[in-house]
Amino acid sequence: MKKNVLVAQSGGPSSAINATLAGVVEQALMNGEKVDKVYGARHGIKGVLEDWIIDIGTPLSAPAALTGLIHTPSSALGSCRFKMKSPADDPACYKTIFERLRQYNIGYFVYIGGNDSMDTVNRLSVYAAENGIKDIFIMGAPKTIDNDLFGMDHSPGFASAAKYIATSFAEIWCDARVYDYPTITIVETMGRHVGWLCAASAVARAAGDAPHLIYLPEVAFDKQKFIEDVQEKMKTNTAVVIAISEGIHWADGTYVCEDASNVKVDAFGHKQMSGAAKVLEGILGDVIDCKIRCVDFSLMQRCAGHLASSVDLFESRTLGSISLAKALEGVSGHVSVLNRVSDNPYRVAYSSVPATTIANKEKAVPREWINKRGNDVTEDLVRYVTPLLGGVFGSDLSAGYPKHVTLW
Amino acid sequence: MKKNVLVAQSGGPSSAINATLAGVVEQALMNGEKVDKVYGARHGIKGVLEDWIIDIGTPLSAPAALTGLIHTPSSALGSCRFKMKSPADDPACYKTIFERLRQYNIGYFVYIGGNDSMDTVNRLSVYAAENGIKDIFIMGAPKTIDNDLFGMDHSPGFASAAKYIATSFAEIWCDARVYDYPTITIVETMGRHVGWLCAASAVARAAGDAPHLIYLPEVAFDKQKFIEDVQEKMKTNTAVVIAISEGIHWADGTYVCEDASNVKVDAFGHKQMSGAAKVLEGILGDVIDCKIRCVDFSLMQRCAGHLASSVDLFESRTLGSISLAKALEGVSGHVSVLNRVSDNPYRVAYSSVPATTIANKEKAVPREWINKRGNDVTEDLVRYVTPLLGGVFGSDLSAGYPKHVTLW
Repeated sequence: MKKNVLVAQSGGPSSAINATLAGVVEQALMNGEKVDKVYGARHGIKGVLEDWIIDIGTPLSAPAALTGLIHTPSSALGSCRFKMKSPADDPACYKTIFERLRQYNIGYFVYIGGNDSMDTVNRLSVYAAENGIKDIFIMGAPKTIDNDLFGMDHSPGFASAAKYIATSFAEIWCDARVYDYPTITIVETMGRHVGWLCAASAVARAAGDAPHLIYLPEVAFDKQKFIEDVQEKMKTNTAVVIAISEGIHWADGTYVCEDASNVKVDAFGHKQMSGAAKVLEGILGDVIDCKIRCVDFSLMQRCAGHLASSVDLFESRTLGSISLAKALEGVSGHVSVLNRVSDNPYRVAYSSVPATTIANKEKAVPREWINKRGNDVTEDLVRYVTPLLGGVFGSDLSAGYPKHVTLW
Repeated sequence: MKKNVLVAQSGGPSSAINATLAGVVEQALMNGEKVDKVYGARHGIKGVLEDWIIDIGTPLSAPAALTGLIHTPSSALGSCRFKMKSPADDPACYKTIFERLRQYNIGYFVYIGGNDSMDTVNRLSVYAAENGIKDIFIMGAPKTIDNDLFGMDHSPGFASAAKYIATSFAEIWCDARVYDYPTITIVETMGRHVGWLCAASAVARAAGDAPHLIYLPEVAFDKQKFIEDVQEKMKTNTAVVIAISEGIHWADGTYVCEDASNVKVDAFGHKQMSGAAKVLEGILGDVIDCKIRCVDFSLMQRCAGHLASSVDLFESRTLGSISLAKALEGVSGHVSVLNRVSDNPYRVAYSSVPATTIANKEKAVPREWINKRGNDVTEDLVRYVTPLLGGVFGSDLSAGYPKHVTLW
């Protein structure tokens, strides 16, 4: 008997998360003998609880719609931030979810998300096993721009954000250097706990001198060393460009952006914090007399779909496809992953691992990929990120003639 | 006898200003009988004064270099902000400039810049005429992302910045709408005195609902009306996206970003102002209890060369080419301009006007292109901006087959 597929998206959106969704739908279309309908839950697992279920298989069986979805940034099904409790603490939640899956005759559920969502995949599959539910298979498909997921070489969505960051640093370098007087430009990237995104700025050095300094949350931020670093760079550079993670913190663990003088509280008690870059602007403004600018890549770094990495879109789509393929084979509680086989040529292999490998953990930038002083990254980091950014779509004419692929 | 060409760039950089530079060089290459060398002055007229003159004709006679230059954002020759005094107030400045032009055997000087630079073009050509200098021809080529230049339909550089803004609003809309709870996103664009860039955000409505509200410096900003506007939009939209110009100001003329509580002064007495968006975040945070985010397009809106408008690059290059062509014909003290012949199909005609038409004036968004309440723009504005954004380069396959150009 045919079963239906359910798919949902969770966590912070990315430029590649819809490619993963497209991959799931594509795999469903390829399995018409086993799969009847493809449903989507709006706003992640919350949409399963609330019955916000829509038919997405019908509209997306149009090739132009599926292709268009791949190039549409952010979660087309909407997202949620929902941390599941254990079945003992919230039995009604589990009961409602599995009743909903029965209601829509779901045999295969693919949840696209980060480490919290993979915790959900794990909890639901364990619950199913412990409650004798043998005809519903639950798979995770990974995504997060932060690149903090264990069990895989890199996280889908990271490469597109990294490409935005590298491209923007190359462009900001062109802009920053036009004047003949000294300037400092402090550019803030996302990355609260891990510095992968900020580290990707180093790739821009292939197209210019920026960034001159890179500060990640993996190393405690030292005010005096920072001032010395900037003064040193200003000796040899008219325009100094600095890359920082939003999550840089002092030695005591408090975030730089939480600097007391920088926090306002609104009428509802919410903290209104300016970013870490603004705090550093203040620090430098007290000791260096030159123009200082702050740039925050803000939402653009995760939603600039027009600049998505072709590698990222390809891999994300493949991982979505594999997640459903595994579920159709009877695998449950796993997450599809990719691992790097070689750097040059860049090649990967796909597989799946138990969701527990990934759930609730964060992978930081290795300390050995950050220089000793903690103000830059190493060549190993650049070698790791560069192949992920992807080239142009379609025929590669960068040499002036087509680089066709030969297989023998 | 052959003469040499000098070209320089001034004012804030844009994604198209190097296309204009390329156009000047291209025209020089086409006139080998009249032109010997092509020199560039680094950092604008300041580089002429300081003798920062470099040979650019030799490296740019390589087609790949010239083509690459067109797609390189920001002023490749560097820029300056230099307001010329009158010959009576600063005779040495004029003397040095014309000595320098003689030193390099310059017959044709093209200055690429905004309204200040066109003032320089005017002053230098008047000085030449008054001092019997009949063998040096000085032309302006226009640029400014602000779109505030008189005498032409739109300013080269504006269209690329507008394309960045429209694209980013379309993408931010995808991002802003993923959650099921209310959010407000305030997006700040450049535009201190005129609101053209912010107004261009309205084009994004072709790809989504954002922005819901648009505030320009052409209309005094009213705090109470603003709060009412946002509350009204929140009745029917979960995610409200607001576009503001950095230059919005209160009825008394003070900028919103200069709000007293928002200004810190550094050790050197420089004001460190957060943006207008941050001030509005504070205002809304006191009366509306929901997540409020600020986004500032910052430098990216003027240097995102990867997203430059093909229309802008074509027109900017043509204007550079025309400026030198006119100088070669013996015109001096003029600026090349373009004017719109029709909207659909979008067509322009090129000519030149005296630099005095443009110098030291600012063209604002017409009041009739802003709605009565001052919180949106009209369809006329959207009709004006849309054709400037340009489509894809190369063959237009958007219909699924090539749209070839036929001439008869």
